[in-house]
Amino acid sequence: MDRCDTPAPAALADPRAARRAMREKRWTGPTAGIAPGRVQANLVVLPRAAAFDFLLFCQRNPKPCPLLAAGEPGAVTLPGWADDLDIRSDLSGYRVFEHGVCVAETDDVTAWWRDDLVTLALGCSFSFEQALLDAELPVRHHELGRNVPMYRTNIDCTPAGPFHGKMVVSMRPYRPADAIRAVQVTARFPAVHGAPIHVAEPEQLGITDLAHADFGDDPVIHAGEIPVFWACGVTPQVVLETAEPPFCITHKPGHMLVTDRTNTSLAG
Amino acid sequence: MDRCDTPAPAALADPRAARRAMREKRWTGPTAGIAPGRVQANLVVLPRAAAFDFLLFCQRNPKPCPLLAAGEPGAVTLPGWADDLDIRSDLSGYRVFEHGVCVAETDDVTAWWRDDLVTLALGCSFSFEQALLDAELPVRHHELGRNVPMYRTNIDCTPAGPFHGKMVVSMRPYRPADAIRAVQVTARFPAVHGAPIHVAEPEQLGITDLAHADFGDDPVIHAGEIPVFWACGVTPQVVLETAEPPFCITHKPGHMLVTDRTNTSLAG
Repeated sequence: MDRCDTPAPAALADPRAARRAMREKRWTGPTAGIAPGRVQANLVVLPRAAAFDFLLFCQRNPKPCPLLAAGEPGAVTLPGWADDLDIRSDLSGYRVFEHGVCVAETDDVTAWWRDDLVTLALGCSFSFEQALLDAELPVRHHELGRNVPMYRTNIDCTPAGPFHGKMVVSMRPYRPADAIRAVQVTARFPAVHGAPIHVAEPEQLGITDLAHADFGDDPVIHAGEIPVFWACGVTPQVVLETAEPPFCITHKPGHMLVTDRTNTSLAG
Repeated sequence: MDRCDTPAPAALADPRAARRAMREKRWTGPTAGIAPGRVQANLVVLPRAAAFDFLLFCQRNPKPCPLLAAGEPGAVTLPGWADDLDIRSDLSGYRVFEHGVCVAETDDVTAWWRDDLVTLALGCSFSFEQALLDAELPVRHHELGRNVPMYRTNIDCTPAGPFHGKMVVSMRPYRPADAIRAVQVTARFPAVHGAPIHVAEPEQLGITDLAHADFGDDPVIHAGEIPVFWACGVTPQVVLETAEPPFCITHKPGHMLVTDRTNTSLAG
């Protein structure tokens, strides 16, 4: 959910080269701006038993948890998504959790790998933000060099096994006519959160103080603009922390899985 | 722009049969509910010189003036839109204008026909309202058996020749999540006004008293709903009255041109 306006080193423009640089720890920074135009994904790695419940959770909550790819148990690849992938080393940062507690922040999880681990890749708003920009709909937090403002809502996700919790949303302000166009543009991308889930009226979501975000940076909303709310990939992170599965690996915030697929290829 | 919830006589379910009944004046009522699922259109008939400017106006203002079909000068048919059409008699009601003044309201304009008249058919919100209902998005004024509320706005249409004026909008209230779905559903129908032009914040359109409509019936807006505004086919009617072309024929309000095309066929 971090901002994607950092200029990418030219050598990191190719997604395969970028993953290689991260594997060899020549690049350990965030992935914003790396491999422009390519899908970047949230990473969730779970033991098979927990992965089953989490897959159900994603199926039941596709807007906050749009599942892009799921690997075979034990496999370190995601065929069709990233050539020559080794999911244990090809991100520039990981977090390792045991029973909901972060026990390590590292740039390589090979030492933690197990044969029952299932790799799940979830869509990220980077993709639809590119679509907004391509449609000449400016993204405020990019302009300001900030993180997107995110809020806890009163919307219950549909539970699955131990996974449950409230939906988290990201907010981008637009003038009303642009809000309508933003719906049209992002509706074409259900694999990366899709159309907004709410517009105007933040109190209907249980957001009582729009000026102060629960995650990310506080918003800047100009006169005449209305808040537009999209389901947010922080939702599964909060749900994972609450469920406290025995073991879990995620990307470090801002250090996404860089895939070979273009954002545009996701358009419906 | 009239409501389309009146039950149709079974004999008027087929569009060709319905036009025949109107031609023979066996049916002289409004067309709401007639030939369900078929495109109904606003009719504008102008002398060739004025038609040229009006065509330019439609091209420049496609959201309020979505041109579906344009006939040859003098022709009483619209090939591809209505089998065996005689535009002079196949509507159940017409209005005839001279220099902006309504000089006749009639069910047959054969006596007024001229070889230089051009028939123009403009999309109507009936079509996208069917799409909303099919998507389980209720249309409030249908539920109430009323006409849709319509408002003059402060938005200038792009002028062409003598044709100029402010855009008129229709308003349908929705809860925010349904407003977003309504954008998605109607965006597929650019030939019949398409996506809304505005949402929430009526004062931005210069609408200072949402409770009182300028045309149609006053709205009923429930708690938690926001107003959603679509460009409206009353815009060209107002523009025509203002421009005062030497001669003009339109449909009588609610007495639309019934075509053979299905509403669904217009989906983009």
